[in-house]
Amino acid sequence: MKRILFTIITILNVQAYIVAQEDQQAFFIKDIYNHTLQHAVCDNWLSYLSNDIGGRLSGSENAAIAVDYTLGELAKLEIVDTTWKQACMVPRWVRGDREEVIVYHNNEPHKVNALSLGNSVGTGNGPLTAEIIEVYGIDTLETLGTDHLKGKIVLFNRPMSNKHINTGYAYGEAVDQRVHGASQASKYGAIAVLVRSVTTQLDDLPHTGVQIYADGVVPIPALAVSTNDAEKISGWLQSETVRVSIENNPQILPQVESHNVIAEIRGSEFPDEIILVGGHLDSWDVGGGAHDDGAGCVHSMQVIETLNALGYKPKRTIRCVLFMNEENGLGGGLEYARISDQKGEYHLAAIESDSGGFTPRGFTCTAEAEVFKPFLSKLQEFDLFLDPYDLYLKAGGAGADINPLKSQKGLLIGFKPDNQRYFDFHHTSADVYENVNVRELRLGAAAITSLVYLIDQYGL
Amino acid sequence: MKRILFTIITILNVQAYIVAQEDQQAFFIKDIYNHTLQHAVCDNWLSYLSNDIGGRLSGSENAAIAVDYTLGELAKLEIVDTTWKQACMVPRWVRGDREEVIVYHNNEPHKVNALSLGNSVGTGNGPLTAEIIEVYGIDTLETLGTDHLKGKIVLFNRPMSNKHINTGYAYGEAVDQRVHGASQASKYGAIAVLVRSVTTQLDDLPHTGVQIYADGVVPIPALAVSTNDAEKISGWLQSETVRVSIENNPQILPQVESHNVIAEIRGSEFPDEIILVGGHLDSWDVGGGAHDDGAGCVHSMQVIETLNALGYKPKRTIRCVLFMNEENGLGGGLEYARISDQKGEYHLAAIESDSGGFTPRGFTCTAEAEVFKPFLSKLQEFDLFLDPYDLYLKAGGAGADINPLKSQKGLLIGFKPDNQRYFDFHHTSADVYENVNVRELRLGAAAITSLVYLIDQYGL
Repeated sequence: MKRILFTIITILNVQAYIVAQEDQQAFFIKDIYNHTLQHAVCDNWLSYLSNDIGGRLSGSENAAIAVDYTLGELAKLEIVDTTWKQACMVPRWVRGDREEVIVYHNNEPHKVNALSLGNSVGTGNGPLTAEIIEVYGIDTLETLGTDHLKGKIVLFNRPMSNKHINTGYAYGEAVDQRVHGASQASKYGAIAVLVRSVTTQLDDLPHTGVQIYADGVVPIPALAVSTNDAEKISGWLQSETVRVSIENNPQILPQVESHNVIAEIRGSEFPDEIILVGGHLDSWDVGGGAHDDGAGCVHSMQVIETLNALGYKPKRTIRCVLFMNEENGLGGGLEYARISDQKGEYHLAAIESDSGGFTPRGFTCTAEAEVFKPFLSKLQEFDLFLDPYDLYLKAGGAGADINPLKSQKGLLIGFKPDNQRYFDFHHTSADVYENVNVRELRLGAAAITSLVYLIDQYGL
Repeated sequence: MKRILFTIITILNVQAYIVAQEDQQAFFIKDIYNHTLQHAVCDNWLSYLSNDIGGRLSGSENAAIAVDYTLGELAKLEIVDTTWKQACMVPRWVRGDREEVIVYHNNEPHKVNALSLGNSVGTGNGPLTAEIIEVYGIDTLETLGTDHLKGKIVLFNRPMSNKHINTGYAYGEAVDQRVHGASQASKYGAIAVLVRSVTTQLDDLPHTGVQIYADGVVPIPALAVSTNDAEKISGWLQSETVRVSIENNPQILPQVESHNVIAEIRGSEFPDEIILVGGHLDSWDVGGGAHDDGAGCVHSMQVIETLNALGYKPKRTIRCVLFMNEENGLGGGLEYARISDQKGEYHLAAIESDSGGFTPRGFTCTAEAEVFKPFLSKLQEFDLFLDPYDLYLKAGGAGADINPLKSQKGLLIGFKPDNQRYFDFHHTSADVYENVNVRELRLGAAAITSLVYLIDQYGL
């Protein structure tokens, strides 16, 4: 009887202990949110990155300034044991000072807002002038063939669909025109391409972004035009032959050295289990790279600042990594993984924020099923985070910079904020701090910090 | 054996039938989303309400124009069987043309952005000038007492907390100063009140809103000032006596008749079971009442337009109701329920959208547990709506206009969009169409239409 009683008491104690522990964790998550919503500094950092430094294209002076600035800010936080710059090679593409697209409608010139696509060549000496051929996708090029395309300027004008709820999905559907359009059109003798901006908005903003020449094709100039201009040209083409004159002068320079920025808090119990939180520090050169991906960088930095402010001592090693060159090469992400693999490191979890500074919706996770499923049920079982904070955790993509860590077989997690407005600003001059809502930004940092905390507490 | 086989086949058939039915319903919800995201007209309606008509305070000419406009638009939809205007009495408060608040700091006059609160009296002949006493809540008035307050102008300056994730909750915590501040301060002899705007933003926009004089108190002028101005005055008060001069001239006129707008589709199978969807058509007079609550009105109208476009034949009666006078009296909501009760109607469900045109997060529901719980499990069991669309359904508040239907014991449901930005615009001159994102608005309409459809299909 005594023994049974003892057993019962033991069970009750263990349960009470678990409940108490859960309570403690719930309180700590509340502390994380309270601190982040009331005292976060991520918005100041973002304002500086976006407005004071500005666009941070890989290899640019601004990118180098941003490396030193963020490294300095992270080094100020007492909780951080080590900070370092990790060298990586990055492409160096420079936009140049001319981006002129003039469309002739009824023989009248109409200036069109345009931006050279990343990695585009220039038109050389003076403008290129030719007839516009409108297509709705790469497939159509084959149907038209060299007969119709040789010497022409192709307008890729398939809109990004507005019917998908997930705008990222719609972007994926539409972006092939931007990435591969020039390369494919060149095969059929086209002399340049204009690409409808990848956004559901109808407005006057051109959206830049990377384009890639396939091996062996003649590189031809590629420029984005605004959706309004693409619609306008399309309208004119219904009843007349439309000619366009294009002039741009970007330069493709030799690769240069740049850096990932890393700050590490060494774990007290399991230092070899690394939890990474990161974003990418480079951005396009137009705008301030505020949502893409200044937000992800300052989210990640804020995780460290919050743990610092709350006096937290992590059991596992927590690393904030600001990757270089996500936009046009992935130099930083690949180099980080290469060195990590070489050192035999193990990233228990890596979380990337690269979808903007909007209200958090949840997280998606790429991992082997045997890692993901127990983790998911563990998180769901402890009723203190996802549900109360209206967040989901589901299987799905993680992030370009952390994907190369896949072979370490940890959890790769993508932070998913609401994405309805993301492509209103993406890769444009409007991607500036003023278009980020401070509360939404801070909520993102709080959600990521909470997840880092729970992974640090539980492991997988 | 034959019989067993027959039973098994029957069971399989029934299951196949249920699955097929579910598929059909999932397809229809997809159709609802596709139509709404691609072809909705709610944004045009909202642009007209907000920009062409503008602020629609109860009893104003604009409110009357909005009644006729929305009634006309609803009547154009073929699916609608009946439209009517339902008369209700509403207060008539007119802002006037003077709202001048001048604060004297170091004897220098500083003009402050101010808006009279709804229902406020004016200062009478010429300005009122007095010393400012700052308080952080109504409680403090009693502590200070008549000795300190008589003849003074009270500045209520407790900020809306930015630590709550739910901004609606934070608003509820802070708004007592605006609603009851003047009335309470008057009891101690104060001659006017200034109220810090109820928002987490620090900016220059004053936020108006209703205030109520308790029976028997001397009504004193009550004006909202911007958070920046409230902070500035508070700073000056640390080191000096600050005087303020206030002049405003609003008028409280006799009640007038106004109208709810109603459009009904008669149910084909259960016409006596009404599913209501609505918002409130009145708004404050500053700005365009775009988020509050033009969005809710056009959400509700879009439900009808979408069902019309998809050729849907509802089993139950569906009513779109645009209520008058939510902001300062609830005349419309109360009258609607009174007449409905009088006729012995039964509202199976009523859904109100009155939290802005932001990305949908879900629905909250007020009902007797015996109605709510089976409904919730029914919705969750059919895995075609809430989860795939990242929406929740939980117990919680419904909406001011539909709450009076409580005695009919149906489901009262509040549509809950993301609320992080709502109080940036609420009751200000910035609550205009340009601050509504069209995709976010349309997603709201699609979510509400889907819920209406499911309730129509299943009942409760």
